[in-house]
Amino acid sequence: MSLNLQYEDIGKEFVQQYYAIFDDPANRKNVINFYNATDSFMTFEGNQIQGAPKILEKVQSLSFQKIARVITTVDSQPTFDGGVLIIVLGRLKCDDDPPHAFSQIFLLKPNGGSLFVAHDIFRLNIHNSA
Amino acid sequence: MSLNLQYEDIGKEFVQQYYAIFDDPANRKNVINFYNATDSFMTFEGNQIQGAPKILEKVQSLSFQKIARVITTVDSQPTFDGGVLIIVLGRLKCDDDPPHAFSQIFLLKPNGGSLFVAHDIFRLNIHNSA
Repeated sequence: MSLNLQYEDIGKEFVQQYYAIFDDPANRKNVINFYNATDSFMTFEGNQIQGAPKILEKVQSLSFQKIARVITTVDSQPTFDGGVLIIVLGRLKCDDDPPHAFSQIFLLKPNGGSLFVAHDIFRLNIHNSA
Repeated sequence: MSLNLQYEDIGKEFVQQYYAIFDDPANRKNVINFYNATDSFMTFEGNQIQGAPKILEKVQSLSFQKIARVITTVDSQPTFDGGVLIIVLGRLKCDDDPPHAFSQIFLLKPNGGSLFVAHDIFRLNIHNSA
């Protein structure tokens, strides 16, 4: 496998598609289609989860409905196995909560003709004021 | 290759070692030893760079001397090739600039008995106020 030179477009398109599904309460459960049954890792605010079924459980346990999201930057890099590493910085607002900055990384890996999310790490950017 | 179950310790130790070197102006050029001559990618504030010599050039071109850094969170995941994916959130202050939040990801890959930085993406978290 070699570098996928479309990595920048792939990164941007993936981010758009992923959040369009995630941010829509009626559609959110379908993000599961981006993950592999056993080989996907998610770390959500420090909680480690492995495999699509448990990731779906986590996603469905989130208590907010509406998410308003503004993407600030998307940086992507190609990996030597034909995958794409993506970091997203942005801000989001859940229901009536105050807005927060967030960082999320996705490592997409090839599987047959398509890419799946092998790694997903999400954090709100909440820094101590010390 | 299989999952490296020490991923969490490796992530924390790496972050500590890396910034101890990077943040010391007299020592900064030695971060180059973490990268591969040809197979390492760095994206620094949106600038894409490949290979240790060009990464060194970039690092040496940075105009600040002192960096004061506070790490907020380090999240790590194991990859199936024996590597470790790391995201660091924190705040830093260069010389007399105002402090900024930052996000940085490192993907460490095995090479013989050690790990090198295959992917490094750095961004200050500067969001438009729109």
